[in-house]
Amino acid sequence: MKKSLVISNVGRLVTMEPKKGRQGRLGVIEDAVLLVEGEHIAWFGTRSQWMKRRRNVADEFDVAGGVVTPGLIDCHTHLVHAGSRQNEFLLRSYGKTYQEIAKAGGGIMSTVRDTRKTSYDDLYRISSERADEFFLRGTLAVEVKTGYGLDVATELKMLDVIRTLKDNHPIRFFATFLGAHVVPAEYKKKRKDYVRLIIEKMMPRVARLELCKFCDVFVEDGAFTSDEARAIAKAAAKFGMRMRLHVDQFGNGKGAELASELKAVSADHLDHVSDKGIEALRRSGTVAVVLPGATFFTGGKHYAPARKMIDKGVKVAVSTDYNPGTHPSVDLITTATIAVTQMGLTLDEAWAGITVNAAASLGIASDCGTISQGKRADLVVFDAPDEYYPMYRYGRNLAAAVVKKGRAQWLDEYYNV
Amino acid sequence: MKKSLVISNVGRLVTMEPKKGRQGRLGVIEDAVLLVEGEHIAWFGTRSQWMKRRRNVADEFDVAGGVVTPGLIDCHTHLVHAGSRQNEFLLRSYGKTYQEIAKAGGGIMSTVRDTRKTSYDDLYRISSERADEFFLRGTLAVEVKTGYGLDVATELKMLDVIRTLKDNHPIRFFATFLGAHVVPAEYKKKRKDYVRLIIEKMMPRVARLELCKFCDVFVEDGAFTSDEARAIAKAAAKFGMRMRLHVDQFGNGKGAELASELKAVSADHLDHVSDKGIEALRRSGTVAVVLPGATFFTGGKHYAPARKMIDKGVKVAVSTDYNPGTHPSVDLITTATIAVTQMGLTLDEAWAGITVNAAASLGIASDCGTISQGKRADLVVFDAPDEYYPMYRYGRNLAAAVVKKGRAQWLDEYYNV
Repeated sequence: MKKSLVISNVGRLVTMEPKKGRQGRLGVIEDAVLLVEGEHIAWFGTRSQWMKRRRNVADEFDVAGGVVTPGLIDCHTHLVHAGSRQNEFLLRSYGKTYQEIAKAGGGIMSTVRDTRKTSYDDLYRISSERADEFFLRGTLAVEVKTGYGLDVATELKMLDVIRTLKDNHPIRFFATFLGAHVVPAEYKKKRKDYVRLIIEKMMPRVARLELCKFCDVFVEDGAFTSDEARAIAKAAAKFGMRMRLHVDQFGNGKGAELASELKAVSADHLDHVSDKGIEALRRSGTVAVVLPGATFFTGGKHYAPARKMIDKGVKVAVSTDYNPGTHPSVDLITTATIAVTQMGLTLDEAWAGITVNAAASLGIASDCGTISQGKRADLVVFDAPDEYYPMYRYGRNLAAAVVKKGRAQWLDEYYNV
Repeated sequence: MKKSLVISNVGRLVTMEPKKGRQGRLGVIEDAVLLVEGEHIAWFGTRSQWMKRRRNVADEFDVAGGVVTPGLIDCHTHLVHAGSRQNEFLLRSYGKTYQEIAKAGGGIMSTVRDTRKTSYDDLYRISSERADEFFLRGTLAVEVKTGYGLDVATELKMLDVIRTLKDNHPIRFFATFLGAHVVPAEYKKKRKDYVRLIIEKMMPRVARLELCKFCDVFVEDGAFTSDEARAIAKAAAKFGMRMRLHVDQFGNGKGAELASELKAVSADHLDHVSDKGIEALRRSGTVAVVLPGATFFTGGKHYAPARKMIDKGVKVAVSTDYNPGTHPSVDLITTATIAVTQMGLTLDEAWAGITVNAAASLGIASDCGTISQGKRADLVVFDAPDEYYPMYRYGRNLAAAVVKKGRAQWLDEYYNV
């Protein structure tokens, strides 16, 4: 028999299922109780409904009137990397451009150098500490990309770290192979060889690990062309990997159209997507993953037109893009606040963006992202009067407890476990 | 003899005094030691300098290589108030304007109603908990305005709370009388009477408390006119209060020129200040207090031209504007990050904005805001590799310890004291 756990005294249970008759508003049950059996949601309802069906449940977790939501899902991160780049933030604040910094050895290649020279053990330790930062804010599922190796050995080292995180950390990780992040310095004059290296050397090794469901390409001037992305996608398909693509970040490169053509599960960034691109995403059902933190942190004025995409029927997820260059923040709630204030999302849409729609972009919406019977009981308890308060008090971490793998714990006790 | 305390093993001691020959860059001493005597800074220098002059000091506080800066100073807040207004944030996200919300009973008057009906004891408890939030982020001096009473009794209740905070909380508080926040609903049709109430009834009572160094007026369409501000300033001068003014927030109302004319210590907001206004501030030496968090949180695109003001020689302070409507965040470091990314300040200017220039706006620059011999030893220890890291990792609280009143303490032990 499966172990049972009752989550009681829930002030507001935010199911994320749309409310009947109130377009876009989140489903909420006040004064609720939720029953976990094994690792899944067996039942939920009001306290009075629970009283009627009450039965003996050994373990009860009283959340003291807190708000319970699905675990947050961060569907675009570069969590695994060595080093930090606050010096570039300083230089940018003095007017240096990203291009000038990259030419002087900064940018992605700077993190590649740090990641290459860092031992597996150190890279695991750093990454595990960062994973704790996500977890302590209620983020229970995280996509992680490679792409700071750009050689066979380091890409595999990164994947090895991701696998060990998967096996040991309470967060659920999803690995994406991003060998095509940038062309590394040593291949600058022979980029065709690098694309060949990705397809012929890296990908078979990556596939053998059976770890990556996804393959990603940074499609942009200075990174990879659409044709290179097509070639990589073709190889990825052979190995059963679906595409997620970095597109239309610094200019319109018809990246959304490309994502649609390649039947990518997600098109990410999209700051400069065109109306045609939006229509292409709608048709293909590709999830638009917007990364407002990166636009904010780099001082950009041109956010992805998330409002318009939603209005046109595109599913929009919101993610941190956590990375050491353009958004060194793991804070998905603050990122959602940026989506609301700078992109014009409603608070309800922002919540959907970091739960149910993020799940859709990872192909796991049948399994998590909402509070529904039979789904995983991956839940967060917020110490807040309602579900809008955390984004309102952005920057203040109000995640108080999590439910994961059939077990509930207060986060202030996490490090004492 | 005064009690001595040595702060040792300082990785980087950020004095905030400009570096010689490097315009705008912060003064920093690496591998430093600082000696506190009583409540003041008696000496600081490198570890090797310390070894030469070393003497017995009973108490040593080893900061484990952390970064030590002056305590953060938040020079524009509305810390004391009851209630929260996430519901307005929700409505705004659905397209309601601030004006529509105010007409429906929201906005400042909503907080006024909550604050009026909250008992002194409850208001003190709420405010003290909020003060802890500031303190736990390294903010050691905070300006607090009244202005959610708008009647004699409630304005005095707010001041009573501020006095009790001053007497009991480790933060150093500075009170500002803001009876002229908005014209309260009951005076809408007799605004002259309300201005008379401020001048004739409130101000003498406020002055008798000997608590407020400052008087503030919200000069804006829908709030108070320049002439009303002049009348209030004239009365304030009689009672020895200097002016700080809310000006040019939603449109240009020649507010900076008014602040200059009234010899205000600060002109705050300034989103729409003109070049003439900037020139006026430069001439009068009035500190420009910019509040980027409020612009960010309300989705405004028009930030105060802080970059230009600095270039023209105006002293610029950066503050949270912490309040329940337009910026419900106490996080001064994140606010500084917004100043950098959205207003184009350098990281060094942002640091000056939350320390030495904020001190100047409160008239306490001779006493704090930099690490200098003889100044108060109000210090923060950041668990960070350098002073740029906290703004880079915005939203993550890296304040680890504070020095205050001759005593050092780790912040994770604060609640156990």
